[in-house]
Amino acid sequence: MESIRVPFEEMKDEFKNILLKSNFTETKAEKCAEVFAANSLEGVYSHGVYRFPRFVDYLKKGYVNPYAEPELVHTAGALEQWNGNLAPGILNAEFCTDRAMEIAAEYGIGCVSIANTNHWMRGGTYGWQAAKNGFVFIGWTNTEANMPAWGTKDSRLGNNPLVFAVPFKDEAIVLDFAMTQFSYGKMEAAKLENSKLPFPGGFDKNGNLTSNPPEILESRRALPIGYWKGAGLSLLLDILATVLSAGRSTKELSKLEAEYGVSQVFIAIDTKKLSNFPVIQSTVSEIIEDLKNSVPDETHSKIRYPGERVLQTRKENLELGIPVIHKIWKEILVLTQPNPD
Amino acid sequence: MESIRVPFEEMKDEFKNILLKSNFTETKAEKCAEVFAANSLEGVYSHGVYRFPRFVDYLKKGYVNPYAEPELVHTAGALEQWNGNLAPGILNAEFCTDRAMEIAAEYGIGCVSIANTNHWMRGGTYGWQAAKNGFVFIGWTNTEANMPAWGTKDSRLGNNPLVFAVPFKDEAIVLDFAMTQFSYGKMEAAKLENSKLPFPGGFDKNGNLTSNPPEILESRRALPIGYWKGAGLSLLLDILATVLSAGRSTKELSKLEAEYGVSQVFIAIDTKKLSNFPVIQSTVSEIIEDLKNSVPDETHSKIRYPGERVLQTRKENLELGIPVIHKIWKEILVLTQPNPD
Repeated sequence: MESIRVPFEEMKDEFKNILLKSNFTETKAEKCAEVFAANSLEGVYSHGVYRFPRFVDYLKKGYVNPYAEPELVHTAGALEQWNGNLAPGILNAEFCTDRAMEIAAEYGIGCVSIANTNHWMRGGTYGWQAAKNGFVFIGWTNTEANMPAWGTKDSRLGNNPLVFAVPFKDEAIVLDFAMTQFSYGKMEAAKLENSKLPFPGGFDKNGNLTSNPPEILESRRALPIGYWKGAGLSLLLDILATVLSAGRSTKELSKLEAEYGVSQVFIAIDTKKLSNFPVIQSTVSEIIEDLKNSVPDETHSKIRYPGERVLQTRKENLELGIPVIHKIWKEILVLTQPNPD
Repeated sequence: MESIRVPFEEMKDEFKNILLKSNFTETKAEKCAEVFAANSLEGVYSHGVYRFPRFVDYLKKGYVNPYAEPELVHTAGALEQWNGNLAPGILNAEFCTDRAMEIAAEYGIGCVSIANTNHWMRGGTYGWQAAKNGFVFIGWTNTEANMPAWGTKDSRLGNNPLVFAVPFKDEAIVLDFAMTQFSYGKMEAAKLENSKLPFPGGFDKNGNLTSNPPEILESRRALPIGYWKGAGLSLLLDILATVLSAGRSTKELSKLEAEYGVSQVFIAIDTKKLSNFPVIQSTVSEIIEDLKNSVPDETHSKIRYPGERVLQTRKENLELGIPVIHKIWKEILVLTQPNPD
């Protein structure tokens, strides 16, 4: 499909205008548009420009409330529980990350959990936010059910993305991964291209592992990373998000007509509070240097640390504009037109 | 090989006597023997009875110092950094778990990191310890290099086990998993039995995925869980353990003649400090009930939550004794004899 390049600022402005029409305040529209555009700029199009129309739809349907603000439910020292009140997930998550950093600046570590929030789009966003400010970050979200538990056929676990981040030079090392080996979005894209997955991504309807997307899209039996291990991790992440936030579990989320009101956890650790703060960057550099000195395998791919590719994509898309399928960009531009309703 | 059943108390007493001969105090010998025997009782023989002889050997070689105690290096509110002084890993890890719980009881969450410690044997031990006392637990250790990074041939990452635990009824849900899909111990056992792994466990020397243990044992190219995802997680766990504890990285550990002086992190969250404390157990029970209601797949295996099998194994081994290969048990009994040196 024909693709165009949209400059970052133009994309952000379009998003902002649409959000202003959707009852966002100036500040909220600016912040939210910035993240949707930055996710696209940094190559996570699935949770940037391609997700934006659904976000606008969820605003219309009332799943996301542009007027709402997160609300403190309970505090216990370095541990806080918040209610997201169905406010935009991006704004709630940015807020919780900031709050976890504030607590960590006081107590060394801060843990903020939030119930009743919405999709945070790209989890890595909050890892970058914390790490670029000098904080270690561990955070995760639950999701509606989209993956069977180990030894089962029907989806009762979420893919529950988990994020780890650490400051590195003026940037960050950010790992952001879901518990399914491949997302349904990825498998649908592979199906459209008539291509196979590089590794098995699920079971067919007879319980055989397969790399053939249509078979997995039919069976709905996506594979957890590491088989039983990823299934177990998904369960624990859901239990912890639910328990820590006093929010909805994957089970409860799956009863709703759409995915809203999820539970999330944000843990920040202030590296300035560590005895070894002055040498942390050289420690991390040594580890990364060792990684880079690895012997490449038969694929001769570039050896990268998690998040490294972002730097290159960001640079390229800043220069050339963000690649978008033209048809989808035109559909987004229609959203800036006055609403006939 | 012929196997016998050794009663838990007998195994523990033997371990304790050997440790007393290895310059452990009464209290330390009791605690350490208890964990080695309990790991065996609960089915983790590889990090119980079968690991004990190597532990004694490491004491003899001075890699583990029975006289040493953990020492506080730095404190910042809910964050503490300790030096393990090469004391027995089990004792240091039990101590750090207790300390993380004490901090969490005060601040809601506590994070204790420890440098220069030793192998904690079974990570789940500390998850059970925290969760049975009402704490959520997240902890991990780094290890020497035993897994190649994604796209590489030589091992520069550790398998860095990660533990998540949550209280459940009077027991716990405990997930304890390493970043390799299968441990070298497991692959060596499969080779001895001339059996294949149930899923690919690594690459052969030509870079093809294989389920054939001898090929992986030859190439030393163990597979990370979830391919690039587990490799990324291993890297982040090593960086965080190293940075938070100011300790040795996998890279530094791999320069030593044996695996000692590792870095670990222990995070505890006090569930009593949560607003929803009274309903947590029913929340967790509902999630587990939903899991159990899954439709079984073609293997018709029992659907279990992480740690569930421990309860059954513990009961069975308490009744029947702990199964041990007779030859190995005899070798351990020799260690109780007066040392001729």
